[in-house]
Amino acid sequence: MKRIYLDNNATTPLDPEVLEAMLPYYKENFGNASSVHEFGRIAKMALEDAREKVYKFLNVSDPNEIVFTSGGTESNNFAIKGIAYALKNKGNHIITSSVEHHAVLNPCKFLEKEGFKATYLPVDEYGSIDLDALRDSIGAGTILVSVILANNEVGTIQDLEEAAKIIKPKGIMFHTDAVQAIGKMPFDVKRLGVDLLSASAHKFYGPKGVGFLYIKKGTKITPYQHGGHHEKNRRAGTENVPGIVGLGKAIEITDKYMKDGGPEKLKKLKERLYKGINDRIKYVKLNGHPVKSAPNTLNVGFKYLEGESILLNLDMEGIAASTGSACTSGSLEPSHVLMSMKVDAADAQGSIRFSLGKYNTEEEIDYVLKVLPPIVDRLRKMSPLYHGE
Amino acid sequence: MKRIYLDNNATTPLDPEVLEAMLPYYKENFGNASSVHEFGRIAKMALEDAREKVYKFLNVSDPNEIVFTSGGTESNNFAIKGIAYALKNKGNHIITSSVEHHAVLNPCKFLEKEGFKATYLPVDEYGSIDLDALRDSIGAGTILVSVILANNEVGTIQDLEEAAKIIKPKGIMFHTDAVQAIGKMPFDVKRLGVDLLSASAHKFYGPKGVGFLYIKKGTKITPYQHGGHHEKNRRAGTENVPGIVGLGKAIEITDKYMKDGGPEKLKKLKERLYKGINDRIKYVKLNGHPVKSAPNTLNVGFKYLEGESILLNLDMEGIAASTGSACTSGSLEPSHVLMSMKVDAADAQGSIRFSLGKYNTEEEIDYVLKVLPPIVDRLRKMSPLYHGE
Repeated sequence: MKRIYLDNNATTPLDPEVLEAMLPYYKENFGNASSVHEFGRIAKMALEDAREKVYKFLNVSDPNEIVFTSGGTESNNFAIKGIAYALKNKGNHIITSSVEHHAVLNPCKFLEKEGFKATYLPVDEYGSIDLDALRDSIGAGTILVSVILANNEVGTIQDLEEAAKIIKPKGIMFHTDAVQAIGKMPFDVKRLGVDLLSASAHKFYGPKGVGFLYIKKGTKITPYQHGGHHEKNRRAGTENVPGIVGLGKAIEITDKYMKDGGPEKLKKLKERLYKGINDRIKYVKLNGHPVKSAPNTLNVGFKYLEGESILLNLDMEGIAASTGSACTSGSLEPSHVLMSMKVDAADAQGSIRFSLGKYNTEEEIDYVLKVLPPIVDRLRKMSPLYHGE
Repeated sequence: MKRIYLDNNATTPLDPEVLEAMLPYYKENFGNASSVHEFGRIAKMALEDAREKVYKFLNVSDPNEIVFTSGGTESNNFAIKGIAYALKNKGNHIITSSVEHHAVLNPCKFLEKEGFKATYLPVDEYGSIDLDALRDSIGAGTILVSVILANNEVGTIQDLEEAAKIIKPKGIMFHTDAVQAIGKMPFDVKRLGVDLLSASAHKFYGPKGVGFLYIKKGTKITPYQHGGHHEKNRRAGTENVPGIVGLGKAIEITDKYMKDGGPEKLKKLKERLYKGINDRIKYVKLNGHPVKSAPNTLNVGFKYLEGESILLNLDMEGIAASTGSACTSGSLEPSHVLMSMKVDAADAQGSIRFSLGKYNTEEEIDYVLKVLPPIVDRLRKMSPLYHGE
């Protein structure tokens, strides 16, 4: 059976070139990057080479602004808790949005139990944060604002440049979760105006278990993971050298992909998919911003249906998609992102996220467009909510 | 040039069988283990298979007592901070030892800044903790004791069974950092009496960037890394499936190695090395317990010398060893472990750790015994401290 993978926001296939680059570090170059002997020096050089690649891709000031982590969730925990503990004598208020990934929301909730205060900014029907609410919520004790760059569920891109104009003149730290943005949309870290930026390799065809946090030079941050002197005392733990080498290679490939018009190709595929669905299926609704949206993320509501049933039927046809974040799958709650966008709870339950990647083809999209309409049709006929045309 | 690796406590070479097991998860089986579709289910099955392998190796009560992490440092941070935050309403006192790895010491120091109190138990000249001091330091507010099983620098094995007899009747949580014990010495988690146990795959021929924390059923623990619903809400972050598969394979191989007399082979090699050094070189001293010691770890002080110079000279001959923990290399401070054992500071600076592994051979040891004496000889002749024959 054909297997079509349209769940690239959950994880991406590893690029074979990335694996190729990693293999020597799983074989002869197995040293600990902190060891002073030759085995260690080879590992250390590979580490710094990867750091250099990330630094070039991000076009930031210094390779040492990059700290490698175990992934996007750690990067977000590090950024939020690290700033909170470093600046707790200055204030105890954190602002974030109601449409963040749980890797941002839950560290904030943890900190609320530890004496911090958090504000969760509302969004409009497209998932865009309310900049007036941001302005109004800033107080004397506000130390950090964290806003996602491209939403993982609906793709909505936040206007961080405008947000930074509100945040930075007040000397408040600004973090973004860019996990779903890298490799999908061009952005300039300096123009975004952020002090910290989180990323995860497995979202851009790199390996799982590795990511990075960009920390602007001069940013005061308390380490999140305590132990040895790794990463210039900012992140303890033996460096995952093969993983970091893979991340470096993946970002190098991503750089080329971005310059070769990758996002435009994704956008064309996404438009083909959405137009095709709209032409063939009634009562569908786009969730997310119609224009300011990650070019690979398409979230569509199928009225009168359960998303899980659609997924199961697609899966039986070899097509992988999702109802939202993989990190909350299994949860019976409707998506907090769609709820924040005031999507009707029943409609939210019938929403499917198709997230495209560089390996998807027009033929795959056309196959989905052949398979999906009869599934929706059949399921609607069985739905107690649907009373037909 | 021959390359001889005697730094297995820093990291071990990846077992080729482990890499073989990992590869399919870097290729076709790339799914996110939280995804509900087939790609996800395949990943999830691999995850649970690895958990089952660890559970069998540890001979504990339930596979769900195993939580996968990004490595030993995270496991230690998770255990210590997780218990501290979970039980802070019960008490705020933590007891550990002065010879712990920094991945235990530094989380304790962080918690001291957050209102907790910590006691660092003294050790004797062999690095064994003082059980009377443990008994005396326990108070009404003591919530956690954390003691390393096999010391990473000198190999000394702590008597956790005796410690547990003091700790557990008082209802205090007991954690051990077993990172350097797995694959080197047999132990029984239930007999040790611990509630939590940390491990890291790359110390037993598995990949870097992955480890686990054993958490005894019923233990109240606050998550350390907040985010999605992974690992039954105990550790957020997309699971590093290839890494976890590698850890599972590595522990399966370790199980066999232990049953096949691996530790005895290590001990024989270590004795050959120590006897050889003693026979050929004057003014050497064993650091660590002469009997209760990890069979692969040999820490030797070479009087009148700088360890770094010995290492450099060994490295030029293709031999990799270390002065202590790789995690603190580059630091100019003498080892906190040797200082706690009241080794003279000058002697501590002249100490070398040889840590053996399953790939080392008698021929390699004999080569070291050929190369090392003239190095020590030459360096001593240049040493201002040495006035010897």
